[in-house]
Amino acid sequence: MDARTLRAASTALRDSAPLVHCLTNTVVQTITANALLAIGAAPAMVDEPAEAGEFAAVASAVLVNVGTVQQRTAEAMRLAARVATEIGTPWVLDPVAVGGLTFRTELAADLVELHPTVVRGNASEVLALAGAGKGGRGVDSTAAPDDALEAARELARRTRGVVAVSGPVDVVTDGDRVVRVGGGSALLTRTTGAGCALGAITAAYVAAAGDPFTGTVAAHAHVALAAEAAAARADGPGTFAVRWLDALDAVDGEALTHAQLR
Amino acid sequence: MDARTLRAASTALRDSAPLVHCLTNTVVQTITANALLAIGAAPAMVDEPAEAGEFAAVASAVLVNVGTVQQRTAEAMRLAARVATEIGTPWVLDPVAVGGLTFRTELAADLVELHPTVVRGNASEVLALAGAGKGGRGVDSTAAPDDALEAARELARRTRGVVAVSGPVDVVTDGDRVVRVGGGSALLTRTTGAGCALGAITAAYVAAAGDPFTGTVAAHAHVALAAEAAAARADGPGTFAVRWLDALDAVDGEALTHAQLR
Amino acid sequence: MDARTLRAASTALRDSAPLVHCLTNTVVQTITANALLAIGAAPAMVDEPAEAGEFAAVASAVLVNVGTVQQRTAEAMRLAARVATEIGTPWVLDPVAVGGLTFRTELAADLVELHPTVVRGNASEVLALAGAGKGGRGVDSTAAPDDALEAARELARRTRGVVAVSGPVDVVTDGDRVVRVGGGSALLTRTTGAGCALGAITAAYVAAAGDPFTGTVAAHAHVALAAEAAAARADGPGTFAVRWLDALDAVDGEALTHAQLR
Repeated sequence: MDARTLRAASTALRDSAPLVHCLTNTVVQTITANALLAIGAAPAMVDEPAEAGEFAAVASAVLVNVGTVQQRTAEAMRLAARVATEIGTPWVLDPVAVGGLTFRTELAADLVELHPTVVRGNASEVLALAGAGKGGRGVDSTAAPDDALEAARELARRTRGVVAVSGPVDVVTDGDRVVRVGGGSALLTRTTGAGCALGAITAAYVAAAGDPFTGTVAAHAHVALAAEAAAARADGPGTFAVRWLDALDAVDGEALTHAQLR
Repeated sequence: MDARTLRAASTALRDSAPLVHCLTNTVVQTITANALLAIGAAPAMVDEPAEAGEFAAVASAVLVNVGTVQQRTAEAMRLAARVATEIGTPWVLDPVAVGGLTFRTELAADLVELHPTVVRGNASEVLALAGAGKGGRGVDSTAAPDDALEAARELARRTRGVVAVSGPVDVVTDGDRVVRVGGGSALLTRTTGAGCALGAITAAYVAAAGDPFTGTVAAHAHVALAAEAAAARADGPGTFAVRWLDALDAVDGEALTHAQLR
Repeated sequence: MDARTLRAASTALRDSAPLVHCLTNTVVQTITANALLAIGAAPAMVDEPAEAGEFAAVASAVLVNVGTVQQRTAEAMRLAARVATEIGTPWVLDPVAVGGLTFRTELAADLVELHPTVVRGNASEVLALAGAGKGGRGVDSTAAPDDALEAARELARRTRGVVAVSGPVDVVTDGDRVVRVGGGSALLTRTTGAGCALGAITAAYVAAAGDPFTGTVAAHAHVALAAEAAAARADGPGTFAVRWLDALDAVDGEALTHAQLR
């Protein structure tokens, strides 16, 4: 992806301040909201069925993350995803721990049929969602991103969307093209919610950039660059999380062109 | 408001350590609890209908914030607000995103009839609650505090309470008197939950000070002063949020007399 | 407890990276997850009845914390505790604010009958759970740990488990032996969720160490040592919480042998 495209995505994000409707797990709501604010987007967490469809209709993008899903929020997710697909609003599915637990695995299978614009997960989750694996251990992946590349490609063709597999090197595909995003920091996995926040950041970038593939790559590059900057100023996982928010704010279009893409 | 009144409010807060019963949104529960602890109050989040009335009856003050309200917590909010009003315990209503979403707008209209001691929101929310506007974009305000002054005055007369409109300069009124609180930092809007925590801090100050108008002004002054101190030591929104908690702890009665009130 | 035992517990924890299934309150989910990640364990928050039993069956340990319990999560807690007891997975009960509120007090009484491996609470909560007191003020304790020693002993004999009473000096007993853990920092009580995270850390250590008494003492020692290190680098409660996560990561088996045990 060339430098001009990345710069344009960054500019579009800062100019449009997309409103991201997050239906996400309660563990990571705070860091997700703070990460969105840091990159210049506007977060709103609305997961009551009485409101979810109404809000999805006015949001710039929707995030559906099943991390602490329950009957009530599952209903809200179905409503929001349906509205988003109907009116052409981009939405991101984050299939946390899918494969390992029956209730959410069935929910995620239904949501895939609604054609998420982007699926973002770890390798175990993507393998499970594509029907090619049993999932990892809780929220951890027991596979590497490239192990899930073929499953990700197939899934992307099925959803006619983009699939991003997170790991030491992230893999992003639209079923045809493949871009790998390196860099980042191992401390991202020592802080709860960094991956989940990446799903929300992806929703914001896709809304701003217009093109799902460009937006997804730009989001992963932004997060990786911020992680590198934060790691350089961190004494451990606590200071890392705080510095990561500072760095998400500091990464601009010019910085984005230095991402390790291949 | 004179220096003696502000000093007395601060002393009363530290001496009484009011127990604030928070029915608030899940995104901001952590920062709300930490902000209350930092100023010397005691937080408790209890939002199950089976417990909310029982707990409101023993709390020093109650906060009702509809940010992520659902059917269950709406019922708990009605119970807690009713108990608080009946026994004369001060309670604060924070009408997050009211105006933009039907379910919470109807709930907030009902809660207003229970006479909240203080209503705290942004200009769009206060305009919507007063029946004079359509609300903002999600949690953002699309209006300035002084645009909502007349609506705030009317609302305060209707609730026989205090209404505080947050913005670059906050406006506090009891329908008659008006005090503006300046200072603060734009970084407050780049951190999720600072405004919501202000609602909780207002509840604590009102309980401690006895007088709702004094307590509300003191709370806004405390938050603004802490924000200025935090901004001076922050490298971005992440470090700001952390330093803001340190600064909430450090602001004392003497510091409070330096607030920018007019 | 001798140095070799503590070192072995630390090594076992880092080597096994226990998966801790947390059914805990929404205020502290984030700091609990981050604290578990910092010590080298793997957190997962699953509190939907449709999933709780299934997940407890694969977890290394289970934490049940009733801080913001509701009807739905109460059902999930009963399911997870029953599964854990049946298959011999260690589980920790944290009876937040039990004694003061009817709904959770009845739930906690039922959970005690399922033989929690460890009960961890403040003195008021342990007294209430043992049937010897009325509970504290919200989440605060109005009694000192040693006031609850006899109640803790009796409760430990009844559950055939371990009971830990948190305070300036923590008291850990299995009904027979008693170990006191000193050190720590008063800032732990100025940060929401430190005590709740200690419950989760206890679950992780008990799973790793095998022996509940050893694991509980090691967990309390780890938290106290990290608090001391964090307090030395903190400017207030905000920076303390962040530095505490860094310090939880830094405390190793050698450091653990310097804990103030008696």
